[in-house]
Amino acid sequence: MLAIQVTKPGLNNLQLVERPIPEPRRGEVVMRVGAAALNYRDLEVIEGSYAIAYDVPLIPLSDAVGEIVAVSDEVRRVKIGDRVASTFWQGWIDGAFESADTTSSLGGPLDGVLAEYIRLSSEGVVRVPHHLSDEQAATLPCAAVTAWHALVTDGHLAAGDSVLVEGSGSVSLFALQFALLAGARVIATSSSKSKLERLLTLGAHATVNYAETPMWGQEVRQLTSNRGVDHVIDVGGPESFQQALQAVRPGGQISIIGYLGGKTGTINPLEIFQQQVTVRGTVRVGPRKSFEDMNRAIATNKMHPVVDKVFVWTEIRDALNYMRIQQNFGKIVLAF
Amino acid sequence: MLAIQVTKPGLNNLQLVERPIPEPRRGEVVMRVGAAALNYRDLEVIEGSYAIAYDVPLIPLSDAVGEIVAVSDEVRRVKIGDRVASTFWQGWIDGAFESADTTSSLGGPLDGVLAEYIRLSSEGVVRVPHHLSDEQAATLPCAAVTAWHALVTDGHLAAGDSVLVEGSGSVSLFALQFALLAGARVIATSSSKSKLERLLTLGAHATVNYAETPMWGQEVRQLTSNRGVDHVIDVGGPESFQQALQAVRPGGQISIIGYLGGKTGTINPLEIFQQQVTVRGTVRVGPRKSFEDMNRAIATNKMHPVVDKVFVWTEIRDALNYMRIQQNFGKIVLAF
Amino acid sequence: MLAIQVTKPGLNNLQLVERPIPEPRRGEVVMRVGAAALNYRDLEVIEGSYAIAYDVPLIPLSDAVGEIVAVSDEVRRVKIGDRVASTFWQGWIDGAFESADTTSSLGGPLDGVLAEYIRLSSEGVVRVPHHLSDEQAATLPCAAVTAWHALVTDGHLAAGDSVLVEGSGSVSLFALQFALLAGARVIATSSSKSKLERLLTLGAHATVNYAETPMWGQEVRQLTSNRGVDHVIDVGGPESFQQALQAVRPGGQISIIGYLGGKTGTINPLEIFQQQVTVRGTVRVGPRKSFEDMNRAIATNKMHPVVDKVFVWTEIRDALNYMRIQQNFGKIVLAF
Amino acid sequence: MLAIQVTKPGLNNLQLVERPIPEPRRGEVVMRVGAAALNYRDLEVIEGSYAIAYDVPLIPLSDAVGEIVAVSDEVRRVKIGDRVASTFWQGWIDGAFESADTTSSLGGPLDGVLAEYIRLSSEGVVRVPHHLSDEQAATLPCAAVTAWHALVTDGHLAAGDSVLVEGSGSVSLFALQFALLAGARVIATSSSKSKLERLLTLGAHATVNYAETPMWGQEVRQLTSNRGVDHVIDVGGPESFQQALQAVRPGGQISIIGYLGGKTGTINPLEIFQQQVTVRGTVRVGPRKSFEDMNRAIATNKMHPVVDKVFVWTEIRDALNYMRIQQNFGKIVLAF
Repeated sequence: MLAIQVTKPGLNNLQLVERPIPEPRRGEVVMRVGAAALNYRDLEVIEGSYAIAYDVPLIPLSDAVGEIVAVSDEVRRVKIGDRVASTFWQGWIDGAFESADTTSSLGGPLDGVLAEYIRLSSEGVVRVPHHLSDEQAATLPCAAVTAWHALVTDGHLAAGDSVLVEGSGSVSLFALQFALLAGARVIATSSSKSKLERLLTLGAHATVNYAETPMWGQEVRQLTSNRGVDHVIDVGGPESFQQALQAVRPGGQISIIGYLGGKTGTINPLEIFQQQVTVRGTVRVGPRKSFEDMNRAIATNKMHPVVDKVFVWTEIRDALNYMRIQQNFGKIVLAF
Repeated sequence: MLAIQVTKPGLNNLQLVERPIPEPRRGEVVMRVGAAALNYRDLEVIEGSYAIAYDVPLIPLSDAVGEIVAVSDEVRRVKIGDRVASTFWQGWIDGAFESADTTSSLGGPLDGVLAEYIRLSSEGVVRVPHHLSDEQAATLPCAAVTAWHALVTDGHLAAGDSVLVEGSGSVSLFALQFALLAGARVIATSSSKSKLERLLTLGAHATVNYAETPMWGQEVRQLTSNRGVDHVIDVGGPESFQQALQAVRPGGQISIIGYLGGKTGTINPLEIFQQQVTVRGTVRVGPRKSFEDMNRAIATNKMHPVVDKVFVWTEIRDALNYMRIQQNFGKIVLAF
Repeated sequence: MLAIQVTKPGLNNLQLVERPIPEPRRGEVVMRVGAAALNYRDLEVIEGSYAIAYDVPLIPLSDAVGEIVAVSDEVRRVKIGDRVASTFWQGWIDGAFESADTTSSLGGPLDGVLAEYIRLSSEGVVRVPHHLSDEQAATLPCAAVTAWHALVTDGHLAAGDSVLVEGSGSVSLFALQFALLAGARVIATSSSKSKLERLLTLGAHATVNYAETPMWGQEVRQLTSNRGVDHVIDVGGPESFQQALQAVRPGGQISIIGYLGGKTGTINPLEIFQQQVTVRGTVRVGPRKSFEDMNRAIATNKMHPVVDKVFVWTEIRDALNYMRIQQNFGKIVLAF
Repeated sequence: MLAIQVTKPGLNNLQLVERPIPEPRRGEVVMRVGAAALNYRDLEVIEGSYAIAYDVPLIPLSDAVGEIVAVSDEVRRVKIGDRVASTFWQGWIDGAFESADTTSSLGGPLDGVLAEYIRLSSEGVVRVPHHLSDEQAATLPCAAVTAWHALVTDGHLAAGDSVLVEGSGSVSLFALQFALLAGARVIATSSSKSKLERLLTLGAHATVNYAETPMWGQEVRQLTSNRGVDHVIDVGGPESFQQALQAVRPGGQISIIGYLGGKTGTINPLEIFQQQVTVRGTVRVGPRKSFEDMNRAIATNKMHPVVDKVFVWTEIRDALNYMRIQQNFGKIVLAF
């Protein structure tokens, strides 16, 4: 079978290699990959700029959907023929992150999904909603589970809550879609007029252009009749966090998920005290249980993830270069 | 002003009386009633069959919407001109029922809302969604808050959960509507084909005719691919509870809310153990906070309560007789 | 090595056999057993009266403590030399029971711990508190985790809560000890004066003799100034449940855990509604996370489990016969 | 009766005045004050340095215990002769701070407790544990409820958790005592050797001298075998918060409660993300329900608050000057 591996940093060093089709070891299954999706971490891992330096050679990428073609003897959870997605953490099933095997993430340190066939833990796969194509379902393992886990599993989102999503990165888009299907009110920000329009088309109740309104926290607050929003999915880094603190109501919550807007900037932690806010430094992604719960919500509400563009999987360099310029609105997917 | 009072049991003993317009005492407001709604408890109170015998003369009914026309000096929560609904418990604001004043229910022991002007605690009113008429908003204080409190406040309903609602009583209809706007999957039961159709029209994902399928618990379970439902809003009494135990998944919850189907029948409590179910004997209605949270969800999702029929308020006897035959689908409302 | 196995029902059919010392397969460890403990389920499994009929030959028993003497290659959670206990569910790490492998219980269907060396999942062991001997620590995997999971993990016990424990079975004794170390108030029942005295010695704040007071529910309520208890750990079956309903406060919770007092009897489920109680049909035992959390509490508070009697492990028949007469106060342990 | 009031800023401007004994208005009770306690806010209010400038003349102080000597007609919650404490928020009974009347705090804007007789809401008093003297019970309304609400009501402290308390301010001392009675492990910090000894005497499991170890966060972490503490009660301001972030485990929580160590300093909010910590900007004090729950825990465990010194209430200036130098270990109380 074919696989693509990292041997040294750099997109140009990705190698297409021939490997034997893997056999399932005890407790494992083998999936024939149908589609995969890119996350920004994948680019960092491939370029060598990720926080962790994994051993090479490494097959990158963590998000895949495909069909199970082999299972080891004692596996009962799934069977040959099941269409499943990989879970980012092969060893985090449910509950606290303390209960996870923190060395079990795909695409580093474990070999990832950029291959025709991959070996996964029988506990590290979930069935995906029938109404989604492989390309659509492949978007779910990281970005969607991250949004769901922060907003629903940990955030206990209720209908009627208001949610602020920042920008149009993939986690923000999923947060917007999940908030809407859960009956919440969504306020979205962007610096691009065309993206603001697409956010409204997706269902956002109100939008704020943060390029035009640098102090957008107050404007978001006004959009809630000055009550403040209940939840913020904060992906923008310290400057954005500063505004989020203005936007959220006393007793509300800010889930810090990323730093797309930069890593520099500081706050006085007493502002958290003065605003009576709960700030949650989220865990990476979430457990399998969050993925399963999310899938039921996606299936019940016939939700479709936003796919920006599909590449053939061997065009991985083009796909990564496209991701790097951050003009996508929705996930970048690889078809096998 | 005019009011209608109970002096001795029986619909024919309701008296239309002239009373002075009330003045707000310390901590109170006065509302000019725009609409009121009936609950089955009101019929029982008027007929003298309610579990508690209240002192008479008593102005019955608990659910009203109207305009605040007077406030006592120190009141800041609301102001003259606000359109508000009454809360069933005038003295239950938030949190545990232990924190409620259990003698503060309207329509007994406190004078209720069947009058042109009523005196309420300034803490015992909530603003209602703008998109609802008085007649629509008057349906909310008991039946809707009961459903919301059981399903959302206590039940922590999440998108993708499955909810079983029994019959087409008002609490069940509200539970159906709230479950849908929160992204849940709804299975509804009824013994009437026409009502099953109306439940589907309201958005139920599946229905079961319990007249045709007396052992409907198993059928509901099959409709969930044998996983069982996550929540049951159980209003049908012991026989229905028996079926609910079959329908719910291990780890799921049954909220017991009433006994429309009768009060007799028993279960072996070990069945609760064997099914690993959580059974919650719900509190009556819920606190003001549940009402406020619910209103935000109703407003965000532009939900409209189901109103079956509107009577002029002085036709209270006709309205009560209509309620008694239980052919209504939706709330019975009184216009002022 | 030596092991004892069940081949056909009956204590007299237990066989002492010679087997090869197990090798760890992928993801497994091997423990040299230092002590084991009995649970009533073990007697039922051996006698063939358990609800599930497991395949034979089967090594029975689920609770063991010992030293890890071998691990498979990739295991990092534990290492050779660690002193650990087995978890009842080898495949339930954390979170909802839905996330458990329900075929992973020790002592059936998986081979249990009645052997000098046993093979366990590397995820199915937990380190035990240093201050406990092997004999003491061996009491923890089932009875203690059951009590902790019901009272703390699911019951969210807080200091100052009141807890009713029924009788002096092992789950009840652990519930009493955990409630005390968590700052709760404990009321205990028994039909034996000497056991009531021992319960007081263990720290119970008050006791009720249910032989002398068949309607003990009301008496328990009076011991709480008529407020009712916050939690009941209900192990006594339907008759005891009936009393528990009288003892618990509105909003309180009853965790149904067993049926030591018999399986027959019924209730009207509307009583749960009238009392506004939450009734939880508990899951069997609990996940590894509950065991780990419990161990921290035991270590912090230097708690010692109550051990009634220690047998040599090959005297398993004597130990089981001793358990059958139910005169023990505390766990029955086997030393290796 | 005598009362002491603020008319303009400054300790020397406190006036001892004669006022009529108050009469209860609708919904009110009158308490004859037996003891009161000081909080730092009282000093700030009297000196005019508090964040809010209240109207004068104002009777300061919020914490009192005494006997109810009069109640208005319809009051049923309490009766003449009851020994009760005042609640800081006269209008926050239970649930979310959103449900509180935020203008109902004693000692500003409402007249406080520095008077022989005071008027309180009938909903704004709680019975106090029998084993406490008035002087001891008067310490509870602010500092103790703050600690309880952060650690137990919002923090869901469980037995076996580890808690870091900073310094020996009153909230920290109560947090230490509550953590201990709930079966938690306590690590305490101070810059004074004699105070560290007193903290150990109170039951702290370990202590750190932050004067000797400026980077004390790492040392605290080591005291937990590098797991990190579960809860931090952070009272020290931004610099202390920085260390707290080092001390807490992933998934643990920091409750920001004050700024005794100063108000300046900043953090990069991404550190909260990297550490996967939950940071809670706590509400002021807590609702009546937290006070009631706390009292049950205090009574069950016969806990005694730490009283540093008792002054005669008319020596308020001496008491405030004593508080200003911050040499107290425990509460400063006024006897009437």
